[in-house]
Amino acid sequence: MRLKIAMGQMQVYPGDPLRNFKTIQAYYKEALAASADILVLPELCLSGYLIGDLFEDISYLKECQQLGIQLAELATTTTILFGNIALEPNLNGEDGRPLKFNAAFAANQGKFLTNPATGLDYFSKTLLPDYREFEESRHFSSNIELALRQNKSIDQVLSPVEIPLPDQSLIRVGITLCEDGWGDDYHLKPDQILAEKGAEIIFNLSSSPFTLGKNLKRNRLFSGRSAELKIPLVYLNNIGIQNNGKTLYAFDGDSTVYFPDQTIQTVGSAYQSKMKIITLDDPNKKEINLGREGSEAQAIFDLLDFGVGEFMQQSGLTRVVIGASGGIDSAVSAALFCKILGPENVLLVNMPSKHNSKTTLELARQLSENLGSWYAEVPIEASVELTRKQIQNLEIKRGGAQAQVRLSDFHFENVQARDRSARILAALASGFQGVYPSNANKAETMVGYATLCGDHSGFLAPLADLWKHQVYDLGRYLNEVVFKREVIPAMVFEIMPSAELNPAQTIGQGGDPLHYPYHDKLFEQWMQVWHRKGPEDILRWYLNNELEIHLGLDFKISSLFPDVHAFIADLERWWRLFKGMGVVKRVQAPPIVAVSRRAFGFDFRESILPVWFSQEYLKLKASCTG
Amino acid sequence: MRLKIAMGQMQVYPGDPLRNFKTIQAYYKEALAASADILVLPELCLSGYLIGDLFEDISYLKECQQLGIQLAELATTTTILFGNIALEPNLNGEDGRPLKFNAAFAANQGKFLTNPATGLDYFSKTLLPDYREFEESRHFSSNIELALRQNKSIDQVLSPVEIPLPDQSLIRVGITLCEDGWGDDYHLKPDQILAEKGAEIIFNLSSSPFTLGKNLKRNRLFSGRSAELKIPLVYLNNIGIQNNGKTLYAFDGDSTVYFPDQTIQTVGSAYQSKMKIITLDDPNKKEINLGREGSEAQAIFDLLDFGVGEFMQQSGLTRVVIGASGGIDSAVSAALFCKILGPENVLLVNMPSKHNSKTTLELARQLSENLGSWYAEVPIEASVELTRKQIQNLEIKRGGAQAQVRLSDFHFENVQARDRSARILAALASGFQGVYPSNANKAETMVGYATLCGDHSGFLAPLADLWKHQVYDLGRYLNEVVFKREVIPAMVFEIMPSAELNPAQTIGQGGDPLHYPYHDKLFEQWMQVWHRKGPEDILRWYLNNELEIHLGLDFKISSLFPDVHAFIADLERWWRLFKGMGVVKRVQAPPIVAVSRRAFGFDFRESILPVWFSQEYLKLKASCTG
Repeated sequence: MRLKIAMGQMQVYPGDPLRNFKTIQAYYKEALAASADILVLPELCLSGYLIGDLFEDISYLKECQQLGIQLAELATTTTILFGNIALEPNLNGEDGRPLKFNAAFAANQGKFLTNPATGLDYFSKTLLPDYREFEESRHFSSNIELALRQNKSIDQVLSPVEIPLPDQSLIRVGITLCEDGWGDDYHLKPDQILAEKGAEIIFNLSSSPFTLGKNLKRNRLFSGRSAELKIPLVYLNNIGIQNNGKTLYAFDGDSTVYFPDQTIQTVGSAYQSKMKIITLDDPNKKEINLGREGSEAQAIFDLLDFGVGEFMQQSGLTRVVIGASGGIDSAVSAALFCKILGPENVLLVNMPSKHNSKTTLELARQLSENLGSWYAEVPIEASVELTRKQIQNLEIKRGGAQAQVRLSDFHFENVQARDRSARILAALASGFQGVYPSNANKAETMVGYATLCGDHSGFLAPLADLWKHQVYDLGRYLNEVVFKREVIPAMVFEIMPSAELNPAQTIGQGGDPLHYPYHDKLFEQWMQVWHRKGPEDILRWYLNNELEIHLGLDFKISSLFPDVHAFIADLERWWRLFKGMGVVKRVQAPPIVAVSRRAFGFDFRESILPVWFSQEYLKLKASCTG
Repeated sequence: MRLKIAMGQMQVYPGDPLRNFKTIQAYYKEALAASADILVLPELCLSGYLIGDLFEDISYLKECQQLGIQLAELATTTTILFGNIALEPNLNGEDGRPLKFNAAFAANQGKFLTNPATGLDYFSKTLLPDYREFEESRHFSSNIELALRQNKSIDQVLSPVEIPLPDQSLIRVGITLCEDGWGDDYHLKPDQILAEKGAEIIFNLSSSPFTLGKNLKRNRLFSGRSAELKIPLVYLNNIGIQNNGKTLYAFDGDSTVYFPDQTIQTVGSAYQSKMKIITLDDPNKKEINLGREGSEAQAIFDLLDFGVGEFMQQSGLTRVVIGASGGIDSAVSAALFCKILGPENVLLVNMPSKHNSKTTLELARQLSENLGSWYAEVPIEASVELTRKQIQNLEIKRGGAQAQVRLSDFHFENVQARDRSARILAALASGFQGVYPSNANKAETMVGYATLCGDHSGFLAPLADLWKHQVYDLGRYLNEVVFKREVIPAMVFEIMPSAELNPAQTIGQGGDPLHYPYHDKLFEQWMQVWHRKGPEDILRWYLNNELEIHLGLDFKISSLFPDVHAFIADLERWWRLFKGMGVVKRVQAPPIVAVSRRAFGFDFRESILPVWFSQEYLKLKASCTG
């Protein structure tokens, strides 16, 4: 097959259909000039994919529909194939609003091609994902609904479509949308039905965010589909950033063609908005599907560099203030923002109290010097003292009665944290004409180890989907690969993490209560793996001496906990925080940049609930604690 | 039909299956002792309904399943009918996790009754709602999926079930779950299929949160279904509170029996957990379906009184500190919490700056005295001055260069707001062993008229689904009906709302930039009505002189805006804030108590997007601004 395909790996700007239309318009001109047979564009490339309940706004839907018609009108000999909302304004969906589909449209010579199976001028998606950040059933009906409405079986509403080529010949194209190609767990396989009905090639129009390991999985899966169906499979994904409010995703593009012989042709670079014209089956371009994905630190850096940078730009933000404590999280955050915005747009501020060591202050100063950023020191002691004077022993009155307000040492830890963020960082950010990020990592986010209106606050939490070990890895990558010099001082990697909020929390002793090499791995099981584990599984593994194997620990768990009582006390402490205050704080957290297959925010949906231990766990615990 | 039904209108505690099991156990004992034919319980009455992705945790699912089996084992002659998760551990759902259904189970003599249509021991829900807070497709498969898997049509998997009565006779019962009975917008009508297959009565097991106007709608709809199907319809709803993290719902119970002659029998009181035994068709108990719902203020008070009270209790919270400004929002909040917790557990604190009037300070003091709460005054002037000294003109350095940080007057407004909340209220709350609420109303929440880490912060936002006029109404209701005396001073209702953050913002002049009688109504159109309107609709109405009618204004819009230019400037100002900083702030907002049919939080899902005006709007605007 010598099909000439213009791969329209565009940047989609969610919520800005006109801007997206103009990109496509330019692409089409280029594709036509190159005599491409077909220009392929991503799923929902006019509206955007993660736009929340804007999908309910009829004026928005109508504008997308209108722009889709204008795209069809553009098309002459080169066929245009794009994803858009198919709106049926005279029919109601199950929410009582106009019926709509996440659909593909193909147009040629100014006209939409008709789906031979339905008689409609669009090709609806069949499989609507409803997990993690995906909630397509909320917004769209599918081919399943269409079949019910037309009194047909599913395979009766699916059909390839004949696309005319400039030489007057026809090609039978099967069109699927994103999830339709990931049908591993569905008993319906839309691509198989299309192949059985004579499709010579499948185009999969996607809007698929990057998470660690995803490209490997897709290469394996899509190669397998192509081999099974014995036809090529063209995967076209957009780039850009999209969010659901609580979680922000980067879309990497990485468009690829898969061949039945399990070779692949990589077409789109990661995070690059560019149309590329390819000729199918050009033997020089094919490569073995090795499923490479580079190092994890590189993938994380690329995602954050692109994702955070785009978020800043699209929000009109150019400057940040970072509270630099001398620790690893704020150092990595500082280096990342210096790379993205330039060090002239970054202000590091160290905010010492009497509990802070000379060492960490010096590390913060050194970090700023290495990065070439702005730097200031603003002590919090006077303000904390003022608060102490105003609140400690404050007399409150009620009728004739009076009482005094008392603050504990722990309360004053939170006073310090809030003083740093809500008083100093927030004011400094205003004065510096910028914003300040939250530097929390995923382990801290998990157990709510941050103060509301304190270090918990910020405009964005770029590191909150990275476990502590990934933060360290990213720090090393920034030094070694990105800056190619020691911008983050070596000592930052060596000191024990500590909040330095009371006399006992020092970088020499009594640091963070989390032993990251263990707790990172424990928390992964509780939150990140697909088939999540609970305390009962963890305790069972411990009792069976399998914990090290299941968690992939390279040390004996007995080196941390002398006995089962200590192990259980630690387990329950963190489970309670994860399911208790952790949730309460996450509800109010800044948007989190997703890196893993499960990020906090609106990827992992949580209600505020009582902390639950299963009966199985309680039995197991009783059996070993008597 | 002389069926004796035990209506198990129980309080469901989401996330606490064992606690729910114990309630049911006690109900069953009572029902059996009264020789009831059947005990009916709510949808998902073991697991809870809004539990987020806890529905993915296999140990949680298995425990609910196990408790369901124990319920069946309880059952002797009185049949038990309850909602639970039906787990198929050996089959996979579309998310790759074990297949599960939101289902009803009926058991008698220790055994589950079999669904004659499927051969399974449960009755799956058919219609899964996917709008507002509902996201059942995320968690459950439905009868539609079941039919596909069994290669059947939908009506082939639905059937009434014969339930044995103590006198050996049988009754054919149709079972539906919540949304199945609200099938107005669906083309499938499960209750109709069940009636056609011979059901003599329909039981609808629900978990249905209260929102304003809902009971009226349900009475109309369910009465209509009963009349159409010519059989009685028993609606059984739970009570309690459930949340999705961002939005909290109160479930009112209000279980009701609907008869084909359009009479109804009200069975469960609002917000009361109580089993009640009724004999169907007891002529003395039937009443005309008048669809009463009481006054709006009463419904709002009942909801907040119950919902906030339960949230406090279930969270183990007993005390609150409230920043009392002298304005209506904080006054209503104070009165509400005094009613819920008792005035001895409420501390009102006024935090004056040089911009605050004697009047508002005096009103705050008077409010506290009227309520009998604790009271204190903590001025913010010294702290704001300290921040000014530390930050204004702070020298920051970068290599040899230096610069000065500058704060504007607007920045200092935010400094004041943050000082009050993040410094004083947060510390006072710790010292008072309590928490502090956010007192924002819905109009402020809509346009982000609050400072992050300032008045935006709090543990809960009890008033954030009330428009300003509803806050005033609730205030009057608290005085007149709840306290039966003037706890909120009359003057609080009279002064012009104002933030008092700068010399121009006074209660005498230059108050809030929102004209609530207009903006409340405008914002309703943008956000709350089912078929939302955008700027293009509003401008069109204005130009057609229809705005007053559509918005229900009792004044001429020209009294606010001299001409179309002023009207458009105001329209765009608020639209930009609603779609811009409003979203950014809502992402970090505390949980909001839902009152209306559309609350902010995860009821109304929002992505952070560019502010969008439709091409239609821009054309219309151009046509009149020329």
